[in-house]
Amino acid sequence: MTRWVGVHESISELFPPTWFKRALEESEPAETDGSETGIEVVEVGGDDPGTLSGLDVCVTLAYEGAFLDSDLSWVHSVQAGIDRFPLDAFDERGMALTNSEGIHGDVVGETVLGYLLTVARGLHRYRDAQHEAHWGDPDWSELGTLRGERVCVIGLGTLGQGVARRAEAFGMEVTGVRRTPTPVDGVREVYTPGELERAIESSKFVVLCVPLTEDTQGLIGPEELAAMDEGAYLVNVARGAVVEEGALVDALEAGGIAGAALDVFEAEPLPERSPLWGMEEVLVTPHVAAAYEGYADRVGAIVRENLRRQGIGKPLANRVV
Amino acid sequence: MTRWVGVHESISELFPPTWFKRALEESEPAETDGSETGIEVVEVGGDDPGTLSGLDVCVTLAYEGAFLDSDLSWVHSVQAGIDRFPLDAFDERGMALTNSEGIHGDVVGETVLGYLLTVARGLHRYRDAQHEAHWGDPDWSELGTLRGERVCVIGLGTLGQGVARRAEAFGMEVTGVRRTPTPVDGVREVYTPGELERAIESSKFVVLCVPLTEDTQGLIGPEELAAMDEGAYLVNVARGAVVEEGALVDALEAGGIAGAALDVFEAEPLPERSPLWGMEEVLVTPHVAAAYEGYADRVGAIVRENLRRQGIGKPLANRVV
Repeated sequence: MTRWVGVHESISELFPPTWFKRALEESEPAETDGSETGIEVVEVGGDDPGTLSGLDVCVTLAYEGAFLDSDLSWVHSVQAGIDRFPLDAFDERGMALTNSEGIHGDVVGETVLGYLLTVARGLHRYRDAQHEAHWGDPDWSELGTLRGERVCVIGLGTLGQGVARRAEAFGMEVTGVRRTPTPVDGVREVYTPGELERAIESSKFVVLCVPLTEDTQGLIGPEELAAMDEGAYLVNVARGAVVEEGALVDALEAGGIAGAALDVFEAEPLPERSPLWGMEEVLVTPHVAAAYEGYADRVGAIVRENLRRQGIGKPLANRVV
Repeated sequence: MTRWVGVHESISELFPPTWFKRALEESEPAETDGSETGIEVVEVGGDDPGTLSGLDVCVTLAYEGAFLDSDLSWVHSVQAGIDRFPLDAFDERGMALTNSEGIHGDVVGETVLGYLLTVARGLHRYRDAQHEAHWGDPDWSELGTLRGERVCVIGLGTLGQGVARRAEAFGMEVTGVRRTPTPVDGVREVYTPGELERAIESSKFVVLCVPLTEDTQGLIGPEELAAMDEGAYLVNVARGAVVEEGALVDALEAGGIAGAALDVFEAEPLPERSPLWGMEEVLVTPHVAAAYEGYADRVGAIVRENLRRQGIGKPLANRVV
């Protein structure tokens, strides 16, 4: 039986849909139990629910109203975050939503350690100076190491654990915050969200790895920034709305914290006039913490396995609704 | 008995001499065996050998002719590299030379991993774009990870091992080159210098951690660069002369290698007209791979321990001549 996979045009914001097509069509089935005989990938888009007709699944970055009006029974988000989707409406409609949780830990872990090392070793300042074809003497008193420094990872899911393990390998003192404060490998102390201020108050680095939900929107505001050390850096690889932008600008301008690294979602762009762009101790990047040439292959592996599960009547993995 | 330590003015190129004074005078003796009753640190400089008279040791960055003309019996280099010193003349004169080998592995390891992550995750390109207050879509096909990539560390002393251990923690395939090709923790395969081209030919990253000697000057020339993969990056935290600069420029301009990170010694500055400054895929920094606010403390620990050894007639640690 041929399985039909729709790839929504919105994923081209991340990578060419052909990558995903290749990942699904060329990969080997997870199990050769005869339940799969072929996967056909078609590109879909536009407002017409009819174009989605007959698909087993629609793989997408964006949420479109056409999904709920179609005869689709399953949508897959190419991101881990599913805050763009109307979860209640999916639930009422009986439409399954799966996400891409669990595949970005290593990539995001590497990006975050790249930010931490850039800041600790001052690499961004040398890059700035390189544009002038000369450099000043570095101020050695500002050059530290990660070794021995304390990092607090807010959110200890796949991303947070990917950060924590790598930070520990550098000899950092790793603490973290998660709703269920059970032990996590490599994390010395796990705090609850209610203990957030205590968790961050003596950390050199605070790294945000939480999904955007009602609970985490504006999680880092004036009080939390005030609790941070003056020499501390905030790293945000969560959605931007987890941090109150105005409060962050204020804290940076007042010297309340030393700097920040911000992975900014294209859907919530930093205005050109934002003072954050021009601050030396702020690293601003597009939403690239998880960007990776192998991304499509990893998402493809999840979708393929779920097609197999669906084919034999097993519950879908990574199911959110 | 008070021990007299001269701190040569040349170390101010790295950090204020007062840091070193504080590190030596305030630190606890390594052993309280009564052999030390006090350390006095004095700043020295100039051409007059007489100013060095009566010192137990002179701690210095630069080599000065006055050293050999003085009654000094021991000079300590604040760097690991001692290529500036006339070793034969020290030997003939019976003057001991000690260096600061062994204290930079973690700091240099962090800096090098910072370079590797910057390149793998494209962080330098976002920093460049930040200056324009906007960014283009990143090209996902250029965004890799360190995980699974091969790195060849040339020179597996303290620095090389500091790099290798951290690279291994990121899941890299670590190989290396050293004169004595005995096993090193975290290094999958150790090659001899005679196998250099084979060692580097299939590596994504080649990291130079060798001291500058007659054997290593120009170690990386046209042939070695030609042996590297077109997608590979060269990272040099050794002295610049280990790489033939002209050959490196040629290889980069011809696309023979993908990029480089160069930690440049102030004593051998990159000319303002060097095309390396303006190449996007080349990271140019001053000599900062080992720069660190705690540097003086670490050098102080070596000098203090050696004062103790000298006091009880034991051989000096880190003795080069």
